[in-house]
Amino acid sequence: MKLWCEYAWLGGEQADAGVTIGVQGGKVVSVEPDTRPTDDAERLPGLTVPGFANAHSHAFQRILRGRTHTGRGDFWTWRRQMYSALAGLDPDTYLALATATFAEMAEAGITVVGEFHYVHHAPGGGRYEDPNAMGLAMLEAARRAGIRIALIDTCYLHGGIDTPPDEAQTRFSDGDAEAWAERVDRISGQVDQLSGPAEEPPMARLGAAIHSLRAVDPGSAARVAEWADAHQAPLHAHVSEQPAENETCREAYGATPSELLEAAGATGPRFTAVHATHLEAEDFPRLGQGGVCLCPTTERDLADGIGPARGLLEAGASISIGTDSNAVIDPFEETRAVEMDQRLATGERGVVGCGRLMEIASPAGYRQLGWPEGGRITPGAPADLVTVGFDSVRMAGTARKDPAGSLLFAAGAADVQRVMVAGETIVAEGRHRQVDVADELSASIEAVEENS
Amino acid sequence: MKLWCEYAWLGGEQADAGVTIGVQGGKVVSVEPDTRPTDDAERLPGLTVPGFANAHSHAFQRILRGRTHTGRGDFWTWRRQMYSALAGLDPDTYLALATATFAEMAEAGITVVGEFHYVHHAPGGGRYEDPNAMGLAMLEAARRAGIRIALIDTCYLHGGIDTPPDEAQTRFSDGDAEAWAERVDRISGQVDQLSGPAEEPPMARLGAAIHSLRAVDPGSAARVAEWADAHQAPLHAHVSEQPAENETCREAYGATPSELLEAAGATGPRFTAVHATHLEAEDFPRLGQGGVCLCPTTERDLADGIGPARGLLEAGASISIGTDSNAVIDPFEETRAVEMDQRLATGERGVVGCGRLMEIASPAGYRQLGWPEGGRITPGAPADLVTVGFDSVRMAGTARKDPAGSLLFAAGAADVQRVMVAGETIVAEGRHRQVDVADELSASIEAVEENS
Repeated sequence: MKLWCEYAWLGGEQADAGVTIGVQGGKVVSVEPDTRPTDDAERLPGLTVPGFANAHSHAFQRILRGRTHTGRGDFWTWRRQMYSALAGLDPDTYLALATATFAEMAEAGITVVGEFHYVHHAPGGGRYEDPNAMGLAMLEAARRAGIRIALIDTCYLHGGIDTPPDEAQTRFSDGDAEAWAERVDRISGQVDQLSGPAEEPPMARLGAAIHSLRAVDPGSAARVAEWADAHQAPLHAHVSEQPAENETCREAYGATPSELLEAAGATGPRFTAVHATHLEAEDFPRLGQGGVCLCPTTERDLADGIGPARGLLEAGASISIGTDSNAVIDPFEETRAVEMDQRLATGERGVVGCGRLMEIASPAGYRQLGWPEGGRITPGAPADLVTVGFDSVRMAGTARKDPAGSLLFAAGAADVQRVMVAGETIVAEGRHRQVDVADELSASIEAVEENS
Repeated sequence: MKLWCEYAWLGGEQADAGVTIGVQGGKVVSVEPDTRPTDDAERLPGLTVPGFANAHSHAFQRILRGRTHTGRGDFWTWRRQMYSALAGLDPDTYLALATATFAEMAEAGITVVGEFHYVHHAPGGGRYEDPNAMGLAMLEAARRAGIRIALIDTCYLHGGIDTPPDEAQTRFSDGDAEAWAERVDRISGQVDQLSGPAEEPPMARLGAAIHSLRAVDPGSAARVAEWADAHQAPLHAHVSEQPAENETCREAYGATPSELLEAAGATGPRFTAVHATHLEAEDFPRLGQGGVCLCPTTERDLADGIGPARGLLEAGASISIGTDSNAVIDPFEETRAVEMDQRLATGERGVVGCGRLMEIASPAGYRQLGWPEGGRITPGAPADLVTVGFDSVRMAGTARKDPAGSLLFAAGAADVQRVMVAGETIVAEGRHRQVDVADELSASIEAVEENS
């Protein structure tokens, strides 16, 4: 298959004009800039970019959108509301909800999601017949939505340091890290079966997560890190999302969360710290070898604060973005917020820069989720492509003057025209080809509520 | 005419269900909540709210969208780029550009705009045959786009304190405040002719502005304030947008910009301070009797900082929003940013609250622009109504659980289904009925560039 793109981002600060892309076996096989359209190439007007990587999602939190925003309180108030949304989730209702949510992501230009998954067990903590029933539902949901998934299977053991899980949290806990590893070993083979033809980049991968140093003690964290090492799998953790997390770690262990993760053998090139909003100065070099996933719309919504993007980049970390709570599913807004929030924090414009924002939008997240070759339009990369039109009121008049700048600073999810994953078109003319997204969202959220 | 709204916001924290609204002579004449739809009422599914008031716009800056975002620098770097966009503006090209820009606003749910207008004269500073040709073009543009306009005619005299205007700024300057007042007196009658039937709320109003204490000396500011008093007109000014503005005022006059405005007789109930980002503690009571217009997306873009919304509300000021640079035209994003940016600044959620955000979105701006009865769905108010659908992927599944919260925190400009101004439907099914907005934006921006 050949595609002719009016513009395409091939790396760097600017988009290239007239790019012909060859696609075969789910991969990009050739890239030629500065070409004229030919009869055998499908024409893609607008700007084509590598698909957005959403490196951190909790799909079920889509239920809360627009309903937990107006009250007072802080992160911890919100967390109580979030727990109450869990009641109606079972493998069937969650499959439907996650399918609709991932399909919403697809329409927004997201081609790979890292689902940070911890709702493992039945209400009350009982195991499902297959103890991975919920994780398998996530994998199946991504398959139905047509996007790649890294199932980041999350170890979540405690309600807080030296505190047992509360009632809601019993659904998250495997009891101890050994039991977590056994369950995850079991799903490992199932993920391989779902990952697609062996010669193509996989559609599904398995990763591991230490939920946080609130929910996993340092010894258990080391066990999770050991599992990830043995499987060469991505390893993620919530890190320093709230000042209280730093304080309780200091009190209990005399160390910051990043220091504890380093001591547990978790940090390094396969590690991704999620949020990292309240790092201490000494933490930056600890995270500099790996990745950091910022979730700006969620961090703003939850009054967490502005993540230290500039310091992290200076320390060498690769930054990705995540939609996290899914109160907003718009990777354009998420990406530009990395720069825009730095402007608020520093009083300077252009802190991050256009080329680096494109890296943040796509290749950084692909790498953090286990597809190091992804997020680029280059031979051998997965053929995951998003085309943004120039004819909406948001882009009109200016997009052809600076296509990459306009995409990053003016476009939104509603401007996505076409999305291709592994060479298959899953969104055309802005609409998902398999899923009526709004209908499925309404029906699946209704079903979760009726089930609770 | 009768409308039956599935939900409508009639004030307070929540929307009402099943609201029948009677409209006659451009005004709301009756409002009945908790009704069933009837055959003689047009059904409006979703949530109907008073139209958004955009209290601060510079229409020509729409040209810069997506093209001045990626470089480095600060507010002052951006200002140089902004000045270079002026070259191709004349009464014809600006009429076309402003028509398209105001029509983009209409599609986003904006029913009244305050155009803070200072591009009065020809390149080099020569007067047009009618010295108000540019202002008249703004009025005509709003008429074509179908929205109300307050032409905030801006006095702009100096390039800085004790500094003559530079070449770009010669187009802004009337020479002195007396000449400004003479020109504005002349347009006053013309505005009255354009304002529509005498028994209906006017479609156009005239206001005055002191550009800033950088561009208008205190004596001239007093003359502008006197004019506004004599005409009982809205009076606006950029206030403390940048720390440098405070510093130069302190140096030259030993006072803050707000203090100088108070001394000039500018502050009070008819006064609106635009931005107010870097107020000093003593300034809050000075502005508490009047209005403040925050422009969060622009202030974030230009690295200005987060405006002190909480302190202003505590001081009694009414807060409105403005799209300002028009790099973003989305009053939903602008409104929720007032709350969201406070979360970043304070670490607390629910600082502003839902009912107050609705006030910020509409009635506060109407009042600041000279329509004190506007921005409410209540008998006697202008029939300016916006309906947001619940069937987009952004709103699906959650909007009926909390219509007002979902509109404020999940919806965007792309979700506007229908817009009515003075009882006339100007946007239906999300599209402007008179203007092909994207086409007109492209053509008019092209024309400005060819003209420069």
